[in-house]
Amino acid sequence: MTSIQSKKLFLGIVGGGPKSWIGHVHRIASRFDDHYEVVAGVFSRNPKLSKKFGKSLGISADRCYSNYKEMAEKESVKKDGVNVVSIMTPPSSHQIIAEEFINKNIHIISDKPFAGNLNQAKKLYKKIKSNKKINYALTHNYSAYPMVRQAKHLVEKGKIGKIEYINVEYIQDWLKGINLTTKNAKKILKWKIDKKIVGASAVLNEIGSHAYHLAIYISGLRGDKIFADIKNFSKKIKGDANAQAMVNFNNQAKGMFWISSVPRGGVYGLKIRIFGSKGSLEWAQNNPGYLRFNPARGAVRLLEKGFFEADFSKKFTRVKYGHPEGYLDAFANIYKEFAKSLTAKSKKRYFYPNEDEGLETAKFIEACKISSRRKKWVKI
Amino acid sequence: MTSIQSKKLFLGIVGGGPKSWIGHVHRIASRFDDHYEVVAGVFSRNPKLSKKFGKSLGISADRCYSNYKEMAEKESVKKDGVNVVSIMTPPSSHQIIAEEFINKNIHIISDKPFAGNLNQAKKLYKKIKSNKKINYALTHNYSAYPMVRQAKHLVEKGKIGKIEYINVEYIQDWLKGINLTTKNAKKILKWKIDKKIVGASAVLNEIGSHAYHLAIYISGLRGDKIFADIKNFSKKIKGDANAQAMVNFNNQAKGMFWISSVPRGGVYGLKIRIFGSKGSLEWAQNNPGYLRFNPARGAVRLLEKGFFEADFSKKFTRVKYGHPEGYLDAFANIYKEFAKSLTAKSKKRYFYPNEDEGLETAKFIEACKISSRRKKWVKI
Amino acid sequence: MTSIQSKKLFLGIVGGGPKSWIGHVHRIASRFDDHYEVVAGVFSRNPKLSKKFGKSLGISADRCYSNYKEMAEKESVKKDGVNVVSIMTPPSSHQIIAEEFINKNIHIISDKPFAGNLNQAKKLYKKIKSNKKINYALTHNYSAYPMVRQAKHLVEKGKIGKIEYINVEYIQDWLKGINLTTKNAKKILKWKIDKKIVGASAVLNEIGSHAYHLAIYISGLRGDKIFADIKNFSKKIKGDANAQAMVNFNNQAKGMFWISSVPRGGVYGLKIRIFGSKGSLEWAQNNPGYLRFNPARGAVRLLEKGFFEADFSKKFTRVKYGHPEGYLDAFANIYKEFAKSLTAKSKKRYFYPNEDEGLETAKFIEACKISSRRKKWVKI
Amino acid sequence: MTSIQSKKLFLGIVGGGPKSWIGHVHRIASRFDDHYEVVAGVFSRNPKLSKKFGKSLGISADRCYSNYKEMAEKESVKKDGVNVVSIMTPPSSHQIIAEEFINKNIHIISDKPFAGNLNQAKKLYKKIKSNKKINYALTHNYSAYPMVRQAKHLVEKGKIGKIEYINVEYIQDWLKGINLTTKNAKKILKWKIDKKIVGASAVLNEIGSHAYHLAIYISGLRGDKIFADIKNFSKKIKGDANAQAMVNFNNQAKGMFWISSVPRGGVYGLKIRIFGSKGSLEWAQNNPGYLRFNPARGAVRLLEKGFFEADFSKKFTRVKYGHPEGYLDAFANIYKEFAKSLTAKSKKRYFYPNEDEGLETAKFIEACKISSRRKKWVKI
Repeated sequence: MTSIQSKKLFLGIVGGGPKSWIGHVHRIASRFDDHYEVVAGVFSRNPKLSKKFGKSLGISADRCYSNYKEMAEKESVKKDGVNVVSIMTPPSSHQIIAEEFINKNIHIISDKPFAGNLNQAKKLYKKIKSNKKINYALTHNYSAYPMVRQAKHLVEKGKIGKIEYINVEYIQDWLKGINLTTKNAKKILKWKIDKKIVGASAVLNEIGSHAYHLAIYISGLRGDKIFADIKNFSKKIKGDANAQAMVNFNNQAKGMFWISSVPRGGVYGLKIRIFGSKGSLEWAQNNPGYLRFNPARGAVRLLEKGFFEADFSKKFTRVKYGHPEGYLDAFANIYKEFAKSLTAKSKKRYFYPNEDEGLETAKFIEACKISSRRKKWVKI
Repeated sequence: MTSIQSKKLFLGIVGGGPKSWIGHVHRIASRFDDHYEVVAGVFSRNPKLSKKFGKSLGISADRCYSNYKEMAEKESVKKDGVNVVSIMTPPSSHQIIAEEFINKNIHIISDKPFAGNLNQAKKLYKKIKSNKKINYALTHNYSAYPMVRQAKHLVEKGKIGKIEYINVEYIQDWLKGINLTTKNAKKILKWKIDKKIVGASAVLNEIGSHAYHLAIYISGLRGDKIFADIKNFSKKIKGDANAQAMVNFNNQAKGMFWISSVPRGGVYGLKIRIFGSKGSLEWAQNNPGYLRFNPARGAVRLLEKGFFEADFSKKFTRVKYGHPEGYLDAFANIYKEFAKSLTAKSKKRYFYPNEDEGLETAKFIEACKISSRRKKWVKI
Repeated sequence: MTSIQSKKLFLGIVGGGPKSWIGHVHRIASRFDDHYEVVAGVFSRNPKLSKKFGKSLGISADRCYSNYKEMAEKESVKKDGVNVVSIMTPPSSHQIIAEEFINKNIHIISDKPFAGNLNQAKKLYKKIKSNKKINYALTHNYSAYPMVRQAKHLVEKGKIGKIEYINVEYIQDWLKGINLTTKNAKKILKWKIDKKIVGASAVLNEIGSHAYHLAIYISGLRGDKIFADIKNFSKKIKGDANAQAMVNFNNQAKGMFWISSVPRGGVYGLKIRIFGSKGSLEWAQNNPGYLRFNPARGAVRLLEKGFFEADFSKKFTRVKYGHPEGYLDAFANIYKEFAKSLTAKSKKRYFYPNEDEGLETAKFIEACKISSRRKKWVKI
Repeated sequence: MTSIQSKKLFLGIVGGGPKSWIGHVHRIASRFDDHYEVVAGVFSRNPKLSKKFGKSLGISADRCYSNYKEMAEKESVKKDGVNVVSIMTPPSSHQIIAEEFINKNIHIISDKPFAGNLNQAKKLYKKIKSNKKINYALTHNYSAYPMVRQAKHLVEKGKIGKIEYINVEYIQDWLKGINLTTKNAKKILKWKIDKKIVGASAVLNEIGSHAYHLAIYISGLRGDKIFADIKNFSKKIKGDANAQAMVNFNNQAKGMFWISSVPRGGVYGLKIRIFGSKGSLEWAQNNPGYLRFNPARGAVRLLEKGFFEADFSKKFTRVKYGHPEGYLDAFANIYKEFAKSLTAKSKKRYFYPNEDEGLETAKFIEACKISSRRKKWVKI
């Protein structure tokens, strides 16, 4: 990696091939605010496919690589090589890929979860901390919605007092189309249940990491102890599909989590509520421009992105109040801030998720698994 | 008790004195549909106060009694004595009072919980079952909202398939005005924490019983095992104030409950969601005329009381769709149905809560307490 | 009428026979707070039917009258005759019936509209004003919801500044079941379109009066000029079914009204928004326990019945915040206040609608009709 | 313009300088789906500023022009000159600028309104129709939300039957910060009230055009007659700030419009409801991923972007149901479709707004003005 001189950052991509939804998302996010130019990538293990797809994105053929090692090797010695690499492969490979680029002093934007399991997470964490030249961002994108950051800000300002209860749920019903009793259900679900691919837990790595991250991101707390109950897709299909958990936080606050891929009925929702001694906050992804702030001794305030009493949120918006922003706007906020963090001259505070939060979510997932197995409260 | 001949049922009341909110509620409910006439009562342990308040309600002085035993004694031998007695004393006395009237073959409408603890509940249950002449209703009033009954109806019709998840919460913030660290907090909270008054658990008897009742009422299921975590008001004030629980139901469905008097911020809400293999249902007390029915493979349907696709709900409404009904309308539905059940000539199905459901909620509360103490899953 | 001595007021009823929905509503409302005892009535023009239905309500046979003149005559000379009469006949008869009882110094609770047309309204208004012994209440029931009164209170306190815009709509879809092209549609709709029954306008007397009343009740303003466009049920069926109107109020505020029985789709809604120089208010009947207060320079406040920042609303509630109240609770508020106004010793302010507001709504309806015919702005 | 051969379209921009919000929006929209490359532009009348800003966008200095004539001249003869020009200048200049580029056979994306007034609109319309080589898109961006298009689709499929009522409002409270009585209010508002800049009407060109466009876009109807009442900012400041209108559509449906920049209270909302003989539709920009479909004889259906019963909407989404999209996603849909329309080989149906709809909105605005002045119904 050379020093950053051009107007735009040079971005490389690992993963996110033609069928990948998240690849599509990362690429839009990188274009959103005009801070990146995608110049290199690995899009498939099949070199031909990787090249074909890369070229369709406007990448020159010689920078469409066959594997991430080759990419790290070549880009790191190239004049105008990539400054940043975005990793959007399955969870189990996050650590080894990231380490390869860290070794070459290339900045990292990684899709969540931080790593496939706690062991990998600890290694990766150590590696990141050991290299002072690189920045690392983790796309826990929900934390980048303007009103989630407003919530974090209100907590920090003491507006809800001491936090006493946290209630989070992330439930999705994508499973509804799959008949779990059929023979090939397992095949179809391979990418969701094979531990070599998804890591420690299907549902927890995929969406549980988001739920827990959101809780610690807004509250500033960390989980202390957990009691969890995890359920598989079915008796035959042993991937985790549903997790219920109670968490005691490090300030004594009590939390409840429900994370599931199973519920039917068009429910696809991430919701968080945080209750403190002076009031409470509620946010839900399906109407993300609003935050309910319920003071203990006053009428509910329905805060709106960019409007009065939600000034902090303005920093993270692109369009005026009254005009909704969504998933992609929030996702792009992480790319935008990361670019700023790399090019800024003076130290500022950035709000994108990082390796510290990544390690915490890995601990949470590991503790969930242990508690569910032992049917006991365990330390996170 | 004589046989029921007059147009209106003669109603006696035990409890619900001048400062009692629930007494006020029961009396309005009894007037709502013109099926009862309040003719006797005990409104205070102080005979003078009881008489004074009774007279203010239009009851003749000689039927304002000093205690429930006297009332049961005298009314049961009186021509035109009470047909029904409504009991709205604190939980711990529900059993002994009800038994006294059952002994005299007087029908019972009892405020919830069924009894102060499981031991009392079992005795009362046995007593009720042993007397074929009396009917017993328990005012788990939320179950009498038209759209809650519509929900029960949809479940029975198989519209959501096999139930897989149940999520209920009942949180109230009435505690916000009380400084738990002051010396006299304990005094103020006496009626909420003294086990001789509230029975086995403050928060569980008061609102936990409602939450669990609603779940079993709509779903038709029973809890099998439970893991719970109960928290006191504070270190000094040892009454239960917050309960989190996971419940495995008898059909393998998994449930989560949150029951609390502590959360701040104008939150005072009972919400239930039931997810089945074909879709899900959502109902919340703060907008009770609507029920969300989310089919697994179709758009969300917002069912409205008395409107198309919610025909069953019509039986339990008094005003047209578009015109909201509330807490008192629902409460009165129990009084109305109970009157009908006493005067009907042919057997019909009634939907008011009864002793069977009462015993179940007592089991749930007992199991919550045990699990929280042992930090283990326990049988309900 | 004798002086009021008993605990309860003696109430007579004119109208509201067995098939009448509004009769049912008035009777529940009169029982709600235990201030009235129904002791006399005329329930049908057919004396037998009137008697039969009256008896079913528990009224003694000799006080089930054949017509309102007989009732006024006899009750007024009877010891313990009715103190109050409730009139719930079709609009065109409101005036003559009310006048008969006013002549006998009997207090009046009348269903809306005030009168069948402006001419009748002026006569009735004069009659009421000429008798200092009687009180008159008009059941524009929506104005009795706690949060509507909170809205009125906030306006009076200057919380939204000078009113600039008012937007009201009352749309119902009850017509959906009637095929307007069939021969007998006219017969079915007789009670909705025959001017001898409904008065000046079907849709305006039925629901337009409510919409306009609510606007002037909350705002304290009066309409100055109006431009309206009224549409009939169909080319053949000439009763008014839809009215659109622009109103300039006496403080220059501009208003829009949409009043209709035609729109399809489960819409049955009364909504009002009032915008002032300092903020705006929004209320809708389908979630009546809440009022949105949108300050010009602050986050939206979602005021809840009986909770902080909605203290005034408490006076008109029976159950705590978090527990919804509905149509009947509000309707009963008018009966309750009217009873208090008759028995109170000192002068207090009452909030039930009266003849002044009644006359205003009649002026509005007349002006709507004239404007629509002339296709011009006209004076109200 | 040369024929389109490169992967990306070459885009030129006229207007949208550093302080322009809408300029920012157009540029993000053009990047969203990677179909355009901004290669030329005029960003200020001041050549230096134009160059400076253009360069900051990565445009080469020689393609940052001093005025649109120069740009049209030079780009049209350049190899790899712009294929498309986006015009985002004030309304009064839309016509003359567009015509210049049409003369050079360059495709046009124009910000709304179509033109400054009806006269300009007619000329521009004629010019566009006279050139078969160019495509023209008008960024009435609200019509590009997935659920607005779903609404159009449902109307076309006959799902709501014959349209009977249309109700639209677009109200914004941006004025709240400006004291209209101060001397320099007029200066501040220059860009909103000077007819040489804004054209025929401030509020109608700015947001009224959106409201009317949305109505005709979804319904497929055209206005026939109108009655309007327009109000200025204040007595001194004579720009239009508020418009109320009734519209009779060409199928006899009746409409109401409220368009205003004045209402206070964080209201910034575009809402539309369309009622037909078989049901109704409701959509509001502040929760744009949902569409209420209220069948006349069935429960309300809450359709969600990309979910069951909203299949058509999928074509216009980038992220899954459950993940919200907003203003920019919709805006970008117009850019995306326009690119496809230019590069497609076979004829397909496109949904972006065009010159036909543009001319209609100009007619509506002109008729509003005339009706308000004459206080009469006028032909649109």
